Amino acid sequence: MSLSEAKKKQGGLAGIIAGESAICTCGLGNGLNYYGYAIEDLAKNAEFEEVAYLLQFGELPTLSQLKEYKQKIIAQRALSEELKAILRAIPKNAHPMNLMQTAVSALGALEGEKEDFSNQDEKIIRLLGILPSILVFWHHYANFGKEISFNSKQESIGGYFLEKLLGKEPKEDFIKAMHCSLILYAEHEFNASTFTARVCASTKSDIFSAISAAIGALRGPLHGGANEAAMYLIQSFNSVEEALKGVNEKLSNKELLMGFGHRVYGAGGDPRNALIKEWSKHLGGDTLLFKVSEAIETLMKEKKPNLPPNADFYSASAYHFMGIKTEYFTPIFIMSRVSGWSAHIKEQRANNKIIRPSSEYIGVEPREFVEIDKR
Amino acid sequence: MSLSEAKKKQGGLAGIIAGESAICTCGLGNGLNYYGYAIEDLAKNAEFEEVAYLLQFGELPTLSQLKEYKQKIIAQRALSEELKAILRAIPKNAHPMNLMQTAVSALGALEGEKEDFSNQDEKIIRLLGILPSILVFWHHYANFGKEISFNSKQESIGGYFLEKLLGKEPKEDFIKAMHCSLILYAEHEFNASTFTARVCASTKSDIFSAISAAIGALRGPLHGGANEAAMYLIQSFNSVEEALKGVNEKLSNKELLMGFGHRVYGAGGDPRNALIKEWSKHLGGDTLLFKVSEAIETLMKEKKPNLPPNADFYSASAYHFMGIKTEYFTPIFIMSRVSGWSAHIKEQRANNKIIRPSSEYIGVEPREFVEIDKR
Ligand SMILES: CC(C)(COP(=O)(O)OP(=O)(O)OC[C@H]1O[C@@H](n2cnc3c(N)ncnc32)[C@H](O)[C@@H]1OP(=O)(O)O)[C@@H](O)C(=O)NCCC(=O)NCCS
Ligand SMILES: CC(C)(COP(=O)(O)OP(=O)(O)OC[C@H]1O[C@@H](n2cnc3c(N)ncnc32)[C@H](O)[C@@H]1OP(=O)(O)O)[C@@H](O)C(=O)NCCC(=O)NCCS
Repeated sequence: MSLSEAKKKQGGLAGIIAGESAICTCGLGNGLNYYGYAIEDLAKNAEFEEVAYLLQFGELPTLSQLKEYKQKIIAQRALSEELKAILRAIPKNAHPMNLMQTAVSALGALEGEKEDFSNQDEKIIRLLGILPSILVFWHHYANFGKEISFNSKQESIGGYFLEKLLGKEPKEDFIKAMHCSLILYAEHEFNASTFTARVCASTKSDIFSAISAAIGALRGPLHGGANEAAMYLIQSFNSVEEALKGVNEKLSNKELLMGFGHRVYGAGGDPRNALIKEWSKHLGGDTLLFKVSEAIETLMKEKKPNLPPNADFYSASAYHFMGIKTEYFTPIFIMSRVSGWSAHIKEQRANNKIIRPSSEYIGVEPREFVEIDKR
Repeated sequence: MSLSEAKKKQGGLAGIIAGESAICTCGLGNGLNYYGYAIEDLAKNAEFEEVAYLLQFGELPTLSQLKEYKQKIIAQRALSEELKAILRAIPKNAHPMNLMQTAVSALGALEGEKEDFSNQDEKIIRLLGILPSILVFWHHYANFGKEISFNSKQESIGGYFLEKLLGKEPKEDFIKAMHCSLILYAEHEFNASTFTARVCASTKSDIFSAISAAIGALRGPLHGGANEAAMYLIQSFNSVEEALKGVNEKLSNKELLMGFGHRVYGAGGDPRNALIKEWSKHLGGDTLLFKVSEAIETLMKEKKPNLPPNADFYSASAYHFMGIKTEYFTPIFIMSRVSGWSAHIKEQRANNKIIRPSSEYIGVEPREFVEIDKR
């Protein structure tokens, strides 16, 4: 490896400890845990709201705590008239992630956090409640000029989102699959968007600014945007044969296969993959889409054993089988990850030091200034 | 120093090299340079637009290049009807930094960047042109219900901003002071907001998402928000004596004195301070405000020689002497730093690797999941 290659490998803060955290183990001995609970246990036995509560307060809720928590979230679903006016101004061809970022920034302007952060927990609940409403309100208004109501019998974030998006009561299975996928996406240590939120919070900025910043980072195809990119990849093939041929071609061209690889998990793989794959299989196991997905996974395993599928690969097809359009996959990620971002913002604030690294200067030597008319 | 103290000192990525950069030296042997040019030379001899050009393209412009560049910026001043609708929805009590973040996110939704970033330079110029208009449009609408036009004979960003904000032709001196302050604020290596922009861009997100994220970080009082906080500090004293007493008290209470200290510059001090102080003195040297500022500076020098004033301390009074209200100091910082942020986004993209550090886990041991009805 040449020196510049070695430097490139070291780049991106890979393997650099950027701070302490008590929230999540990712890639450590015990796999992926949220506050000590294994992701497998949570994904199979909990509702998303239980996990959001865990991330917000550090402990799983009792039945009555969960009930109260869910009521509080439900009470925060409605949009103000000002926020509606803002969403109405954004046309349907806008990127939904920029739309979501706009809405969260606007919440900061309209309903800002207290300067001493004493209402941070309220604001987290506001975000959990309102994020699905923002997307579905805009979806129906921008596409059909229709203003939806925020009333619903659905008690869960996932169920409410599906009902409002699709305009009908969601199947029990879909709600369960949403719980699982939201749980898997909820938290993941110092990933790029969470780290963005922490850097932002470290200046003592408000929670809306920091969550909005995190949304900006999640949008990128190397991060949250990978679930959409994976979908476009899978859908671009009309048969298993085509997929095998296409993926082989991409690999020889050194193109990135979206939904594969991870900074922290090596060849061991992303523990979230098996869990969401199970749901994808359950919802659409006999479709071509699923078969193409599995064929790609198998080929990648053989050709690139160090690049197993990450959580995004089968999330894509799972969402697709529920009838969600691809552009909304990453916004759903926001509805979930807001819980992890918020946990990290609280933790950063509790023991704050501004996050301000240095760079290695590789630029020109000092040079003499020449006045403009002599240039 | 105890172990936990030592850890705290190491926190916040202090002294950690987070990547390479050719843009700026900050705290290195040759002081503060932008692409090799000393800040003193730039602040005394250049217009802000020359420096913005330097940061965008790596070289100072010739006279004709500068002329063309300024024309392009001027052509980007106007707001679209959609953006106006969004700004109209935000009431006057909103925090102007949340407002600015909303507007930049909305630009991403309304006028997004191309996916291959091939129009990034156009978008940078769009931002340079439109940012002052956003603030002044909102200012006049929210406070007086008035919609301003974007026509102006002022060719500079600073002059245009002052004219539109204050509703009259700005004094020559004010325009020059704006050039100086915008130059000083333009770029500062891996500061928290720039680093936020880079982390965001490292996921291959778009420039509006990344600039919006950076605005979120700049808002905090430990970072850009310090110029406003410094103003409130200085203004809280009605005499030099009161100021001395008050600052002494704050120091004994271990309160932060806003506008003092810097992660990178030690006791050597922030080279930008002398340059902006000169302008502050020129514009308001015989006011009580200036005398109080100097008294605080002198006292701090004696009591806390390791915490010299940073660029924010005298920026505050300089802006105040131009008639700008305190809430707009940090938004002005955006109008300038957008040039540095953009330079870093371009640089990050040119040699990208996702910025994704790790954390040291300090949380609970793995624990067994208990079903909700048994908790
Ligand atoms: C996740 C990811 C950004 C991690 O990046 P990283 O830790 O910086 O790793 P690198 O990009 O340096 O990858 C190391 C090598 O594997 C290759 N590689 C990594 N992911 C790859 C993928 N998905 N497909 C093909 N090749 C890949 C890289 O090109 C690089 O090759 P090189 O050594 O020949 O230059 C990267 O794996 C990726 O881009 N994956 C696709 C996007 C994705 O699914 N993101 C969601 C993550 S949850
Ligand atoms: C800029 C700043 C965030 C740098 O932070 P940092 O590199 O993490 O340094 P620390 O906060 O660890 O400061 C080291 C020590 O100096 C003290 N200190 C730093 N800045 C101080 C200030 N402005 N007033 C009083 N004490 C200060 C800290 O309390 C700390 O004391 P301790 O060792 O007893 O805990 C910090 O100096 C600060 O908060 N300044 C005020 C805000 C400001 O002006 N920001 C604009 C910067 S351009």
